[in-house]
Amino acid sequence: MSLFIGVDVGGTKVLAAAVSTSGRLVRTARRETPDRNEDPMVVEDALTDAVHAVAGSRRVDGVGIAAAGFVDAAGERVMFAPHLPFRGEEVRARLMERWDTTVMLDNDANCTARAEVTYGAARGATDAVVITLGTGIGGAVVIGGRVHRGRNGMAGEFGHMQVVPQGRACECGGVGCWEQYCSGNALARAARARLGEAPTLLEQACDGDPDLLTGPMVTSAAEQGDQLALAAFEEIGSWLGVGTANLVAAFDPDVVVVGGGVCDAGDLLLGPARHALSTSLVGVGHRVVPPVLRATLGPSAGAVGAASMVRIAVQDHPRVFRTSGTRARARLRAARGTSRRR
Amino acid sequence: MSLFIGVDVGGTKVLAAAVSTSGRLVRTARRETPDRNEDPMVVEDALTDAVHAVAGSRRVDGVGIAAAGFVDAAGERVMFAPHLPFRGEEVRARLMERWDTTVMLDNDANCTARAEVTYGAARGATDAVVITLGTGIGGAVVIGGRVHRGRNGMAGEFGHMQVVPQGRACECGGVGCWEQYCSGNALARAARARLGEAPTLLEQACDGDPDLLTGPMVTSAAEQGDQLALAAFEEIGSWLGVGTANLVAAFDPDVVVVGGGVCDAGDLLLGPARHALSTSLVGVGHRVVPPVLRATLGPSAGAVGAASMVRIAVQDHPRVFRTSGTRARARLRAARGTSRRR
Repeated sequence: MSLFIGVDVGGTKVLAAAVSTSGRLVRTARRETPDRNEDPMVVEDALTDAVHAVAGSRRVDGVGIAAAGFVDAAGERVMFAPHLPFRGEEVRARLMERWDTTVMLDNDANCTARAEVTYGAARGATDAVVITLGTGIGGAVVIGGRVHRGRNGMAGEFGHMQVVPQGRACECGGVGCWEQYCSGNALARAARARLGEAPTLLEQACDGDPDLLTGPMVTSAAEQGDQLALAAFEEIGSWLGVGTANLVAAFDPDVVVVGGGVCDAGDLLLGPARHALSTSLVGVGHRVVPPVLRATLGPSAGAVGAASMVRIAVQDHPRVFRTSGTRARARLRAARGTSRRR
Repeated sequence: MSLFIGVDVGGTKVLAAAVSTSGRLVRTARRETPDRNEDPMVVEDALTDAVHAVAGSRRVDGVGIAAAGFVDAAGERVMFAPHLPFRGEEVRARLMERWDTTVMLDNDANCTARAEVTYGAARGATDAVVITLGTGIGGAVVIGGRVHRGRNGMAGEFGHMQVVPQGRACECGGVGCWEQYCSGNALARAARARLGEAPTLLEQACDGDPDLLTGPMVTSAAEQGDQLALAAFEEIGSWLGVGTANLVAAFDPDVVVVGGGVCDAGDLLLGPARHALSTSLVGVGHRVVPPVLRATLGPSAGAVGAASMVRIAVQDHPRVFRTSGTRARARLRAARGTSRRR
């Protein structure tokens, strides 16, 4: 039986998983993500350690890597990642040489979308928009059943679409970005801004210090019926619906899938989002409005999608991938030869 | 030699054109578009008249129709059009029966995009975003060299993406839609709002009546260096850049093409747009920013793209199109039989 492994490299932890053809996690290993100021080689060591822990003594047919950062159009490098040490290294070729197997690389949101389209909420959809609400917003565009990566591999950066002119400053350098109004951080901010308006469980949850308020605290309070927390979800959910309406106007997908930690609140988030979508979307009387569904694969979706990506590539195009692996290794050796000669 | 005809059905006029394999207009005919309150049959008569005028006595291999309205996902019906009498009639099947040739139907923005990708500014691009600035905004998404139409055939409705919360009311029923800030109408409004601020050629152009001010008057004044008109273009161009940055964040295309009448001003419009794109777009330091190019095919792009659409379909898939034509006619006859029996 073949063995395909997916590895999700997040800002805080690495999850490696052997994934079955039906998308089931057969065996997993977790490691801490090394600090972003470490040498990239330290991250590669952690990945290697996790992959070996999952593989044991078995031959690995392919490893897919889902990285929390910008992956280039060719799927060779992590160009930039706020929480990882990579800055344009040829990660794919290096790991392919080190592991002697086919390796594929993409960003985590794209891998999550692959998992949801293949095994999850978007199964069977031709065109889908996948939105991941965590600290910020991750996103992916699926067209004709395939993830659309774009010229730079940067398609799906929905979180940095401007929704408010001269709005809140964003870490990206822009202003008024969607993720400043709709994300885990935005949820905590929305609740914080309401403290004192009414009695709330959140006062106790954060020990009276608004700065300690987190998204999960707001979710927990909202699930207990806390009015202030529910109002925060109403605000974030409405922003989710408005931004989704913009994406649906542009792509007209079959389905919209929403994942990420903020989505643990389920309909407390998606209810207001669906309402705002149906009131904001153009031509509602002349179209099928796509369902807005909660992602079903949870935090392992990135690893599952990464494994699926490499499985499909190797099985559908074995010659291409053997060739490109060899080429990538040859390129790497040539580059090293060059630098030795310098 | 084969004869493929493209027909652009706009709000005021019909343009039919025999189009060569290189995208050249070989022969054209123009007709007035009948009033939207007429019977749909009157529009079909006008189209028939124009197609016959172009074809003469020659056999027609296929007719592509570019309609200013929502065309359904199957390309069979014009579901709704603000300036045409169509309301869901099976236009394609009816005209195929009437003309006894292959007929294909899509909306005008999608046909314009096909023309620009095949013969125009986006030639050779894999992925493109095409924006048409007329009275409002038309748009199209090209992925992998093909127009992405979406579940309802309504992809590319960029003009109704919200850019200002609680912003200007839009004819679509929404508020803050992009086309309220960036279009021919928005250009005239921007100039109107500035009247009196400084001496301007526009006072004379509109005979002192601001309500008579049009986009072309503003373009003409700007081309003569009129500061007030230039400021209006600066405003519209900046909005063009901000909205384009949103689309590029989502799609990451190779190129952005801007067409439509407002684009006659060239760099007076595109200069501010490129500037706003480069300051608004996420990850500018880590990506190739796509060029923002002026469309090259002008007002006949819709007809050229419609002809190209049907030419490619018939030549690449002759059996499919013969089959689907027969089926469409059979469906139509069955429907008529049913209505007769009522």
